[in-house]
This record gives sequence, C-alpha cells and structure tokens, in this order.
Amino acid sequence: MTAFRKPVVSYLGPAASYSHQAVRQAFSESTWELRPAVTIDDVFDHVQDGHATAGVVPFENSTNGSVVFTLDDLADRSNRYANITITGETYVDVHHCLVGHKVPIPVLEDTTEGSGTCTPTATDPSPLKPRSKPLGSLKHIQRLYSHPQAFGQCTAFISTYLKGVEIFEVSSTSKAAEIVSKDTTGTWAAISSQLAAEMHGLDFLGKSIEDREDNTTRFLIIGTDPSVPSNWDEVKKSLAKSGSKSLVSFTVPHTSPGALADVLACFQAFDLNLTSINSRPSLVQPFQYIFFVEFEGHKHDDPDGRVKGALEKISGVAQSWRWLGSWQRYR
Amino acid sequence: MTAFRKPVVSYLGPAASYSHQAVRQAFSESTWELRPAVTIDDVFDHVQDGHATAGVVPFENSTNGSVVFTLDDLADRSNRYANITITGETYVDVHHCLVGHKVPIPVLEDTTEGSGTCTPTATDPSPLKPRSKPLGSLKHIQRLYSHPQAFGQCTAFISTYLKGVEIFEVSSTSKAAEIVSKDTTGTWAAISSQLAAEMHGLDFLGKSIEDREDNTTRFLIIGTDPSVPSNWDEVKKSLAKSGSKSLVSFTVPHTSPGALADVLACFQAFDLNLTSINSRPSLVQPFQYIFFVEFEGHKHDDPDGRVKGALEKISGVAQSWRWLGSWQRYR
Repeated sequence: MTAFRKPVVSYLGPAASYSHQAVRQAFSESTWELRPAVTIDDVFDHVQDGHATAGVVPFENSTNGSVVFTLDDLADRSNRYANITITGETYVDVHHCLVGHKVPIPVLEDTTEGSGTCTPTATDPSPLKPRSKPLGSLKHIQRLYSHPQAFGQCTAFISTYLKGVEIFEVSSTSKAAEIVSKDTTGTWAAISSQLAAEMHGLDFLGKSIEDREDNTTRFLIIGTDPSVPSNWDEVKKSLAKSGSKSLVSFTVPHTSPGALADVLACFQAFDLNLTSINSRPSLVQPFQYIFFVEFEGHKHDDPDGRVKGALEKISGVAQSWRWLGSWQRYR
Repeated sequence: MTAFRKPVVSYLGPAASYSHQAVRQAFSESTWELRPAVTIDDVFDHVQDGHATAGVVPFENSTNGSVVFTLDDLADRSNRYANITITGETYVDVHHCLVGHKVPIPVLEDTTEGSGTCTPTATDPSPLKPRSKPLGSLKHIQRLYSHPQAFGQCTAFISTYLKGVEIFEVSSTSKAAEIVSKDTTGTWAAISSQLAAEMHGLDFLGKSIEDREDNTTRFLIIGTDPSVPSNWDEVKKSLAKSGSKSLVSFTVPHTSPGALADVLACFQAFDLNLTSINSRPSLVQPFQYIFFVEFEGHKHDDPDGRVKGALEKISGVAQSWRWLGSWQRYR
C-alpha cells in the first residue's frame, strides 16, 4: 500500500508570516501540505518545477503598493516560468503587534509614555495620530526589529511611543519576532503578526499598531494547470456570483510609443473594466517597460466573447503579450 | 554691501550619492549652492517651503524601476506640496565600484577567485555572467555594505566573487563607503560610486561591477515656479529640437472602474504619446489608486492645443487630476 502524500502548496515563509495566514485561509491543512519557501522566486521555482502544485505570493498592499518581486517573476523575462498562471487571490487584513518582553517590575504609575499624539512640526503640521496605545511601559525598549514594509505601516505609533529607539530592518516580520525571542537583555522588541509572537512566546506590548485600520495585503495563488476544471459548471455558478479577474502582461514596440494607448484601447473596445495597471523595466532597453493590466472578466467564462475579442485585438498591437490567468474574484 | 547668496538646489544626499552626480550635471556650482538633504521628503519640503529654489530627486532606475518615495511625494495626498512642479530631468549612468581596503600582503598567485562564472543550478540553469573581474584578491572580505538597490544591480558579481560574505543593507551607497572607511579590520567592503570611494579614501577592488552596462537612473528636477520663463523664445527653440514631456496625476471615481480607460483615451484622442504610467495606493480606500501618466508634449508649448485639449477632456472624466509639470526632454 502506498502512503497517501498530500499535494504541496508553497508560500513565502517563514512560518507565521502574513503569507502563512494567506495560505491557511485559502488551503485546508487536512488536504494540503503547507510548505514555507525562503523567497518569492523560490515559490515560483517550486511551482514551475512541479515540487509544489500551488503557490501563494503577496501581490500588493493597500498602504505600500505593489510587490515588485512578484511582478518581476510574472514578467518572466527569461522565460523561466512559462507554465505558471494565476488561479486565485486572497486578502489578509494586516494587524501588526509590538512584541517583546514586558518590564520585569511593572512601573504602575507610568504605563503609557507620551501624550498619545505626535508633535506637530513645520514640515508635518498635522501628524497622523496612532490608532492604539501601548499595553504597558515601553521605556525599556532600546531596539526595534521588523521588515521595512511594517515600519512604513506603523509610522504614527513608532514616532509617538518609540522615539529614539534604534531601528533594525530584517527580512520578515516573523524573522524579527524570532530574533527578539533570543534577546537576553529584555530591551528588544519586534513588529510582527500575532501568530509570530505566539509562536515565539513573546509578550504583547501593543496590538493593532498600524497607521490605517484598512491595511490589507492581497495575495495571488499560482499554479501550472490552465485547463478548465472538471467541475466547471459548479465553478461557473460561483464566478457568476462573485465576478472574475484576469491579468495580462505585454510589451509595446518602442518605435511607436503610442502603442501603449492602443493596447489599452483594446480593453475599452470590449468594455472590459481595468482594475489595476502596473509596469516594470523590460530589461531589454532602458526605460522600456513590461506592462501588467488586470481587468474584470474570465478567459474561460466569456459568453459574449469580450475577453477573447480583446486578447485577439491586443495580439495585433502589442509587441509581445501573455495571458497570466483568470480567477474568481475574492472580494 | 550685501554679500551675494547663491540660490540653493536641494538633492538627496549624502555627498557623493548618485543624486549628487545628477545635481552636478544639471546645476553649475559657480551659480548654485548644492545642498544635500537626508530624505526625498526633505528635498520636497525644502523646495515647497522656499528654503531651496530647486530640488533633484531620483525617479526611476532602468533596472529596478520606479522610486516609490518620489511618486508618493508627487501624489501629494495631504496637499503638502501644492506648489511643486517638475521643471526638468537628467540621467546618470550608474557604475558601481567594489571599494574597501586591499590585502596588506598581495597574494600574487591568486588574484581573482572563482571561475568568473556563477555555478548553474536547477533553479537558475543559465546564471548571469559578471561583466567585470575583481581588481585584486577578495579573499579577505567578510562584510559587504550597500543600499538594497545596489545589491539588486550587482547580483552576478556578488554571487560569483563574494559568495558567503555577510550582507549589510544601509541607507545609501555613500553611507556604505563611509562605514567601510572606519573599518579597522580591513575586511569590510562597500558597493558605491567612484566619487564616494575617492571622497572616503578607499581602494578600488572592482569597477563597473553592475549586471547591466545600461544601468541608468533618471532624476527629476523640481521647483515651485510654473510660470513661463522670461527667455521663453529661446527655450522654445531647444524644446523644438529635443522634445518635451509632461506628467499628470489623477484619480478615477471608484464607482466606475472603466474611468481609468476613459482618462487614458483622452491622451489618445489628442494623439499624445504616453511615455510611462505608474500607480500608487490612493490611501482613501484600499486598492484604489493615484495614477501617473507621462506623455510627450508641453503645456506652454502647445501650438495645436493638443495638451490643452487632453487636459480639458480629463477634467470631465477623472475624479481629481493635477498637472505636475512640463519640461525639456533630456534624451
């Protein structure tokens, strides 16, 4: 008897990363093995090479914008990821915690430092007010570890309650929690997810310390099988309810810069709503680009032929183009 | 007699940064005071507040893409930079050097380590070959300092000649050179410009170590005076020779996602070639954007009224929009 092996879904690790939350949201651990990868490139590699059936990578954050590493892999300039298509999306609400070690002897008369507002300055006359207060004294904190994106999402809390603390940028928020868990001085703290803090046995010094309540990261699910699924009729019913999105990449002939508008007009000609547009360097010639257009519609669920029509029209205008996938809208 | 004070141009410092090269290219030190600023925000602040007449900030790199900090300041979500317009552009060819301290006793029989090629792996079967060789032994190098963008531009050299060296990300390439200049062990190196190495008295261990020969950064020149210059007739002659570009930012009503295509169609309707397109989060609602469109044309040199026509048409379609400047094309 052969032991049953679960299919693998690769995600941007380490464990307890926000990508880990995304993959747990989209894939059941009872039927899938959730396997962390070191980089976004590694997730693409594992899926392309068949070591993983699916992959989960961050695509954009509502505060910080696009994740260029994912766009660069989707640009696939060296044709390394020829079989990869996007098969779905999921969103994770990002709530950052300040985690570390509580002060050994609680300073009861002084549990929250500062006035709770940033000091207005000439250059920033109305600074953002932090959305939450520390859960205890932060006077002992001398070092703060996190990912650059997380620092960028918690500016009000940091500039109000952690003035003068030394900042250390590391590769992930869960890495930051891991580093702080090894601190013997009790003076280091990390900005990380609740999951990472719990995994590394850290105290909560602050919760929901992000500047914006609506701080959300969108993740893409990738795979290598673009064929129509066997339960297509059922899938189509949910598509009808939630809607679909598709992603196309393209380059335009550099001798005719107006071609960008020509390609975009193809979507308009078939009344396809554009939901996002991105560009990355082509790396063929400086300041020529690979463009990414996301639009509402599905290649395989296209009763009036609008997606088909637009793609046919694009092939006559673009220098090169690629359909990168169609999937069910998550929200 | 009042001492003559030169007008100030603010640039992203520190001294010897690539922005410093850009500002030296575009502004004469005999008539301008070149003053370094700590962040891109600071350059915008100094220009908006009149502490500087002009500013120079990086806009995009041909390998790494857009500089989001500059786009975010141009997005001007809190109306802090209401008077800022783009008045010009300049390009700097980015050549990175490996700088540090030569080995005290030259190891003559082994001046270059490695085969000069990366080891092919399953995931990267044809790795990029470095364009240049080290100028001496690198066996003593244990630490490598630079800006993350510079690491990203020198991947082949690093993975071929500096395998296993510990990487330290710092805020600028010139900061990296400064740190290495204070090293007393002789085992630290930096990736920086030639200028920064010379300024800090470091040895050259490698030159032109970037992956791509055509590694170029484009800088924008900003100011606060959008009026037509007094020598307009003369300016118009050079505009006619080199061409002009303009930048517009806009948002679209989120209830009508097709509006993005409608705005882009305005440029097409007046036959204006788009040269770049970017988007950043609006920070009003998650996954709504501020778009940036750059096109060929000049607001003040518009004999057939195409720019005027497009901008009028945009004001009827976009939710909000802003002309961010028109300037003479540099190349």
